[in-house]
Amino acid sequence: MTSDTRSARLASLRDALARADIDGLLVSSLSNVRYLTGFSGSNALVLVTSRECLLLTDFRYATQVEEEVGDAATVRIEPTSLWLGLWNALQHMTGVDRIGFETGHLLHRDFARLLEQGSRWQWRPQEDLVETLRERKDAGEVAAIEEAVAMAEQALDRTLGKLRAGLTETAVAGILERHLREAGSEAYPFASIVASGPRSALPHARAGDRVLGPGDFVLLDFGAVARGYCSDITRTVVLGRASAEQREVYEIVREANGRASGAVRPGMTGMAADAVAREYIDARGFGEAFGHSLGHGIGLDVHEAPRLARTVEAPLAAGMVVTIEPGIYRPGWGGVRIEDDVLITESGGRVLTSFPRALHEIV
Amino acid sequence: MTSDTRSARLASLRDALARADIDGLLVSSLSNVRYLTGFSGSNALVLVTSRECLLLTDFRYATQVEEEVGDAATVRIEPTSLWLGLWNALQHMTGVDRIGFETGHLLHRDFARLLEQGSRWQWRPQEDLVETLRERKDAGEVAAIEEAVAMAEQALDRTLGKLRAGLTETAVAGILERHLREAGSEAYPFASIVASGPRSALPHARAGDRVLGPGDFVLLDFGAVARGYCSDITRTVVLGRASAEQREVYEIVREANGRASGAVRPGMTGMAADAVAREYIDARGFGEAFGHSLGHGIGLDVHEAPRLARTVEAPLAAGMVVTIEPGIYRPGWGGVRIEDDVLITESGGRVLTSFPRALHEIV
Repeated sequence: MTSDTRSARLASLRDALARADIDGLLVSSLSNVRYLTGFSGSNALVLVTSRECLLLTDFRYATQVEEEVGDAATVRIEPTSLWLGLWNALQHMTGVDRIGFETGHLLHRDFARLLEQGSRWQWRPQEDLVETLRERKDAGEVAAIEEAVAMAEQALDRTLGKLRAGLTETAVAGILERHLREAGSEAYPFASIVASGPRSALPHARAGDRVLGPGDFVLLDFGAVARGYCSDITRTVVLGRASAEQREVYEIVREANGRASGAVRPGMTGMAADAVAREYIDARGFGEAFGHSLGHGIGLDVHEAPRLARTVEAPLAAGMVVTIEPGIYRPGWGGVRIEDDVLITESGGRVLTSFPRALHEIV
Repeated sequence: MTSDTRSARLASLRDALARADIDGLLVSSLSNVRYLTGFSGSNALVLVTSRECLLLTDFRYATQVEEEVGDAATVRIEPTSLWLGLWNALQHMTGVDRIGFETGHLLHRDFARLLEQGSRWQWRPQEDLVETLRERKDAGEVAAIEEAVAMAEQALDRTLGKLRAGLTETAVAGILERHLREAGSEAYPFASIVASGPRSALPHARAGDRVLGPGDFVLLDFGAVARGYCSDITRTVVLGRASAEQREVYEIVREANGRASGAVRPGMTGMAADAVAREYIDARGFGEAFGHSLGHGIGLDVHEAPRLARTVEAPLAAGMVVTIEPGIYRPGWGGVRIEDDVLITESGGRVLTSFPRALHEIV
């Protein structure tokens, strides 16, 4: 992250503070901390006011925080408690009385601290002030997501070459994850899903001890992480030759995926995007079997704003990166999901995932 | 989990509710939900009262919850919001007025719901009611942890055979994680640490893009998951022949590890256990270089109660499973940590990790 990028983000957040009529924001979400300062450690509090950006962390991160944050924030290494450090710092700030906190990221235990130890200040719950800024990615963020997409696609390509009957789902996850690491993935953005046969109908299956058998659908839903940014991709393949029924369901999902990816553009609501895929699947007779939303934003978190769902009236905007992941799930039989990562540009959706979507039969 | 186990856990929790003078507890920690009911999904609320154990989840888990929970709880599949389901259920309960909630697991956003939508009831913050029950493991839990230990040790054994100069830390993590999966690990309890050369001195390094070189310490800290239960193990090896200095530091850590494992027993405080290792390291001149606590409990979470640390006055008890993980870290030079998982029994510590602790040189 360049110094200019950090400055721009802080300036946008300060505008949001002014609109929310607060003098500062206490940031406790680690993803938001990273977005604002570059710090990727596991313990931090950040306070942003009109004049300051203060980052509190502990001794374990003394070296790392210096490398990652540079002059983006005033850093304090706290020997005992970040909260003690916060009270000390606040006492020396003037004009900071009404302070927002992140209602979706602060535990009640810590909220109780604000009321007790921080009773000198007025604490105002805030929703998504930083998350809203994060919705539209800059060029550096898009480049990181593209790297994470490339890692995931390389790993998938190598894994499909090794898929065969007799392996457990967990073993397949191991092959996939090893190739993700070889491709350079820093971490796993979520527990990889490898769901085979009837288990592919469970939208929230993980990898289990089921043994892959001939004729199975094998659904792989996973991602990579590059410079903190996530990719999230799903492909569903068939072990052996697909039956006519498998092919029919698959092609409906593929068409729904392609229609939605082709339709998204700035100004379209999340609801309208969802409807593009949903209405097609519905028209083909499988509406009941598409039991989740079309997609979600990706970035520093693998699930972040915006959402593409039936209830979302907010419009898409250029710079957003979202998943498009329609599916059809038939309990006891199996399921298909095809998920791509799509950048919204002024001229429409640019699909970042280029892995083939044609039905892949492992023969 | 057997039906008897579940009944015993609920009975213990109900005793704790009576002592805390509350009519029920709203459980929002997913690990606590799993401990009490067996449910392992990612979205649930549980309400335990003197008469009921109610579990609320969503449609995605309709099949899974039935398989996992059996008659341990009354299950409600909520079409829209778990919170709406909670208000509905509470309205039909009599004698349930003062309800505890988990202050360390409830976000402020949800606490605000309690005050707004749940204003008919009195909400009382509670600390660690279920966590305290979880400290002492029963035989089934110990067996699951032993399985997770065996998976980790098998994976480590296979990985060390492939360690060589020229691999990146991330590639080594990939090899390790693939073997964890092959051994049957359901997940990764935390981001695997593979830290080489000077990076082994960073207690919170993960795996990075550093290339392993001759003479490096390579520190591997990772775990496996079996039936929800975690193992957590660290070994530090040398790529090539160890220098005299490396060997000296290594042997101090090994001795500190062995002394602490040999000393822990019921009734000893966390502080006293920590001191066994710390005083030895201190006497050998490296006290400043052991910058973290001796250990922590493991179970459904990889970090749970109790803690073995300088400030902990609570005594150990039979049935607890803790890590013993002394280390010495010298910035710019490297570090050594040796971590075992130890069951506290009436007759002392039983070390569950049997992987050799002798200095391993990869030659």
